[in-house]
Amino acid sequence: MATKQKILIAPSPRKVNDIFDENDLSRFAALGELVIHDEDTPLSDAQFNDIAADLIIVIGQIDLPHTRLEKAPQLRAIINVEGNFLPNIDYAYALTKGIRVLNVSPVFAEPVAEAALGMAIDLARHISKSDRAFRSHEETYGLEANEGAFSLFNQTVGFIGFGDLGKATLPLLKPFNPKVKIYDPWLPNDYIASFGVTPASLEDVLSTCQVVFVVAGVTSQNQGFLGKESFESMLPGAALILVSRAGVVDFDAMLDAADSGKIRVATDVFPEEPLPANHRARSVKNVLLSPHQAGALHTVLQRIGKLAIADAEMIAKGLPPILCKVAQPETVALFRSKPVSKS
Amino acid sequence: MATKQKILIAPSPRKVNDIFDENDLSRFAALGELVIHDEDTPLSDAQFNDIAADLIIVIGQIDLPHTRLEKAPQLRAIINVEGNFLPNIDYAYALTKGIRVLNVSPVFAEPVAEAALGMAIDLARHISKSDRAFRSHEETYGLEANEGAFSLFNQTVGFIGFGDLGKATLPLLKPFNPKVKIYDPWLPNDYIASFGVTPASLEDVLSTCQVVFVVAGVTSQNQGFLGKESFESMLPGAALILVSRAGVVDFDAMLDAADSGKIRVATDVFPEEPLPANHRARSVKNVLLSPHQAGALHTVLQRIGKLAIADAEMIAKGLPPILCKVAQPETVALFRSKPVSKS
Amino acid sequence: MATKQKILIAPSPRKVNDIFDENDLSRFAALGELVIHDEDTPLSDAQFNDIAADLIIVIGQIDLPHTRLEKAPQLRAIINVEGNFLPNIDYAYALTKGIRVLNVSPVFAEPVAEAALGMAIDLARHISKSDRAFRSHEETYGLEANEGAFSLFNQTVGFIGFGDLGKATLPLLKPFNPKVKIYDPWLPNDYIASFGVTPASLEDVLSTCQVVFVVAGVTSQNQGFLGKESFESMLPGAALILVSRAGVVDFDAMLDAADSGKIRVATDVFPEEPLPANHRARSVKNVLLSPHQAGALHTVLQRIGKLAIADAEMIAKGLPPILCKVAQPETVALFRSKPVSKS
Amino acid sequence: MATKQKILIAPSPRKVNDIFDENDLSRFAALGELVIHDEDTPLSDAQFNDIAADLIIVIGQIDLPHTRLEKAPQLRAIINVEGNFLPNIDYAYALTKGIRVLNVSPVFAEPVAEAALGMAIDLARHISKSDRAFRSHEETYGLEANEGAFSLFNQTVGFIGFGDLGKATLPLLKPFNPKVKIYDPWLPNDYIASFGVTPASLEDVLSTCQVVFVVAGVTSQNQGFLGKESFESMLPGAALILVSRAGVVDFDAMLDAADSGKIRVATDVFPEEPLPANHRARSVKNVLLSPHQAGALHTVLQRIGKLAIADAEMIAKGLPPILCKVAQPETVALFRSKPVSKS
Repeated sequence: MATKQKILIAPSPRKVNDIFDENDLSRFAALGELVIHDEDTPLSDAQFNDIAADLIIVIGQIDLPHTRLEKAPQLRAIINVEGNFLPNIDYAYALTKGIRVLNVSPVFAEPVAEAALGMAIDLARHISKSDRAFRSHEETYGLEANEGAFSLFNQTVGFIGFGDLGKATLPLLKPFNPKVKIYDPWLPNDYIASFGVTPASLEDVLSTCQVVFVVAGVTSQNQGFLGKESFESMLPGAALILVSRAGVVDFDAMLDAADSGKIRVATDVFPEEPLPANHRARSVKNVLLSPHQAGALHTVLQRIGKLAIADAEMIAKGLPPILCKVAQPETVALFRSKPVSKS
Repeated sequence: MATKQKILIAPSPRKVNDIFDENDLSRFAALGELVIHDEDTPLSDAQFNDIAADLIIVIGQIDLPHTRLEKAPQLRAIINVEGNFLPNIDYAYALTKGIRVLNVSPVFAEPVAEAALGMAIDLARHISKSDRAFRSHEETYGLEANEGAFSLFNQTVGFIGFGDLGKATLPLLKPFNPKVKIYDPWLPNDYIASFGVTPASLEDVLSTCQVVFVVAGVTSQNQGFLGKESFESMLPGAALILVSRAGVVDFDAMLDAADSGKIRVATDVFPEEPLPANHRARSVKNVLLSPHQAGALHTVLQRIGKLAIADAEMIAKGLPPILCKVAQPETVALFRSKPVSKS
Repeated sequence: MATKQKILIAPSPRKVNDIFDENDLSRFAALGELVIHDEDTPLSDAQFNDIAADLIIVIGQIDLPHTRLEKAPQLRAIINVEGNFLPNIDYAYALTKGIRVLNVSPVFAEPVAEAALGMAIDLARHISKSDRAFRSHEETYGLEANEGAFSLFNQTVGFIGFGDLGKATLPLLKPFNPKVKIYDPWLPNDYIASFGVTPASLEDVLSTCQVVFVVAGVTSQNQGFLGKESFESMLPGAALILVSRAGVVDFDAMLDAADSGKIRVATDVFPEEPLPANHRARSVKNVLLSPHQAGALHTVLQRIGKLAIADAEMIAKGLPPILCKVAQPETVALFRSKPVSKS
Repeated sequence: MATKQKILIAPSPRKVNDIFDENDLSRFAALGELVIHDEDTPLSDAQFNDIAADLIIVIGQIDLPHTRLEKAPQLRAIINVEGNFLPNIDYAYALTKGIRVLNVSPVFAEPVAEAALGMAIDLARHISKSDRAFRSHEETYGLEANEGAFSLFNQTVGFIGFGDLGKATLPLLKPFNPKVKIYDPWLPNDYIASFGVTPASLEDVLSTCQVVFVVAGVTSQNQGFLGKESFESMLPGAALILVSRAGVVDFDAMLDAADSGKIRVATDVFPEEPLPANHRARSVKNVLLSPHQAGALHTVLQRIGKLAIADAEMIAKGLPPILCKVAQPETVALFRSKPVSKS
């Protein structure tokens, strides 16, 4: 007797109900029999082997080495309900078998872009700085309060990296009529130019932009690639907004550059989270601190389930996935992001 | 012998060099003989009478009652290099004589809109709030830091007033795909709808919008029209951003609504400036304080001169002014803004 | 006994029901007593005098010389339900009395812009030309059919004039990422530049643009200002789209330039309408002929009534008009458009 | 001794110089040794085998069955310099080997979208129809000429298919403020909605849209899926613009629907090209005929080379292709487009 195709939902470190509502689960159930593993303990080999033969879709970040994957000949998709690709999968094997490996990073692009814009305006226009002055009875008014402030309108703005996050940030900036320069060594110049912006070298972005958004992910090739010299090459008073991964910058050098007054910095990411109580970042000047909150909205978690089920449905129909991020054979092995904690 | 046409530049409370550069002054000089009164003391009747017969353009906010205007039969434009119309002019007389009365308020629209957006994102996304928590070692991370936060994307957003400032704010919001409702009793619904937004009653804007921008000027008809009941009718946790004039709200009622947690508030304007040291606004919860800095950037002052000379040139050519705000016969008498101080 | 304020609706050459629906008329009736003169015969002095004392608004293009206007001391608005200002009014007198003189030209901007874009694409991409070849069994395919064709994408595009019509055309072109140059001697360069385009001289527009939209109205100063030399200075194969008034061009010179293959031309307007049966325009090469149809859609006529009543309501409330075109004291006397026939 | 990596450029039916300029070829030469086969005769097995061991990139549509591919172990990309995927490749084998299969269809999206918009405006606004009337001395003017015409502004507009071509057409329509409905069974509703449009069933698109763009490719599943009933279900006078492939419609039924006056039709594609001289399409009413010219501009051919070299460079650097269309394992086998002739 034919057994039914199975879908494994093992979303740890998230819980099923954080990301899927009843309707999402019904849609999954229409594609196959749901096997739900809603615990933080890893799925055991025995548990995996029990369902492997009928598995068509895996939701989550369980270990999927070659030895497991070869027991799941019907498997067509592995969807990590986080925003990154982790070293939990034998990607090379999966890709030659035509198994789609996906993550839901696109859901984070818009909220992080929004926060990045908010932080950029904050740095440019002294929003939190003047509020802080008010609270300590030291505010000045009007032109005086704006000493050192600048407007984003008609400014030269740079991006380091131009993936989903950069692409979500760009349209929020467009109404400010910026001159945009983009450095992304993974993209052809023609492609970058098709967005109405200028492809540029890293040096050019750093040395000519009044606002620089760092939106590049960490790879094995670019850890700490923004260091002391990078910050020194920036325009005096330029604003740096770091919203991707702390690993791409030399964090201490970045704080030094802010503290000296050379640049102003906003960061949503930190080398350690939580940041140690006595970490100097808390008292450095010209820094805006954001506790890894740019993407982590409750409404965003609910979008995760929508992306996962929509692409699962596509794949079940024999169509390519559309909404999730698709692991590319060329680059998946390069990413070095740490598993994030639940938030 | 024919005397030359004269242009009076009396920009007090600003100084000539704050707003005009050499090029601007050369362009003015090409239109007539410049008479510059760069002092804070008022222009005396004797000084005025001395040049009245040849005056074609007045730059500034000197007194221009009927008795002075009738001595200046060639006068074609009065350009206040501030953002408002003051009771210094006999408007009715000026308008029947075809004298254009202008101000430069359009220069402030973009920078104020930018600050308004920055403040809206700050309130929605906890930007200064989380930074403050970091500085006092009380930060939380990710989802926890976002308790009560919301995204502007796909939100219902309201405007109270839709003049230059509202029109400059709207395009900055468009990339967030908001549902926009606008209340402005001075505009036909058809006109509001032509911006792709929904004309609405004040009640509707207040009771259904997650973010409300107050961008209406004060008139003799609307002083303090947003009061206790207005704030009580708002959505719980809604954000109110006040960037036009403090006079349109009952300021204490607004602070009460923030302090109680009913709404969150950002304000760039205050009933008194500087705010008294012991004013409760400094310690009220859920308030972001901005010291009348939204429009007062140095780069904005430089735009003032550009607008004034460009429209002076139009008028000198016998063409209508284009860039400045033009006093309308129907409404000019209604405005009740106080002369602003220099900033 | 107080008489009621009166509104005269005398829309000849249109009929009341062509432009006003029941709802429009109800809204007018709420502002005053309606006096409707729905005939092509002019309103007699007796008819006018009978209502003059109580008139607050006139809809239409009846004669309003000084002698009539001074009998209507309450008159506050004259709204021509056509797209132009005619010499039927003593404008100078009206303006000193604070009477608003309006027309409904804004309703024509969008449909004419749409037709202008359609004609530009037609000329650039051989749309009607290839269809004509098909019908005469002379079509070629693909690349061959495109000999001499060009795309609007990334093209240099010029505007001669930048009033309502130019402003409505520009956003339709924006997605094609054009480099736009605009010549309009009535506008400051700063204003033109604020649209993200380049202010330019007439010579520059003509000699460097692949597509030129002529959207300037005729004034006493610019009749026939585009002549033989103008067309000779254009790029070979450039497209000229004339949608405002035939009077701004030397029509014969324009046809010569098309016939010789120098440029391609689309025109919606003609020196005489209907065009004489034997007029050479019908057989000249490289010309697209459009029988004054760009603005004259039935749906557009219905918008006329909406604009007229909306601004009448504003004026009745003591507010400035917003939707209609407002006669400017400096320029109203310059326009030289002929009364258009009904269409 | 190590031999150099080789790149085969065999662009038949195009010629090398039609699509590559000197600069493109230099960039290719920097990636490997160029082997150019610029003839219409197929590459022989001997010719292939001679270079197979060192081949890294193939440009063109030569036969690449399993037997050839297994002789080319270093092959990483096959780039068809046409807009489709043909049955010349063993796709399944290529994909399991990590060989990228690409085509340059994206270059055609913008020019075809432009032509599609031009044809839509032509049908809606009677552009070629009125020009034809002028040439036969039968024109009417203004409102009369517009009998049956409509404006695209604020119209309900449908897309059948929403691939590259649909995505290039949508932004050209946006300034017309349309209500857009999209039918594409290969895309999740959430994805379609993210473009600010409404996902819809085929029936809904057909029965409610005033303008329908058919931009779906032919697959083994949808040949002739728009037939007599489809056209009968459309709104009276609706405009159908067919710019993808003739194979998706029942062409005769489409002509019938136009001839009867039920709908108006523009088509850039035909069941046979050239169309037989006596084909009824030439004389059917309410049809606009375009000889497969929508994409085939000389400037577009030049873009082909730019895409091919840019993605070849990415792949040579070990990065994913970005600009070309990437064959998806799920769908590549479904396409049924005929090899197009040279144009």
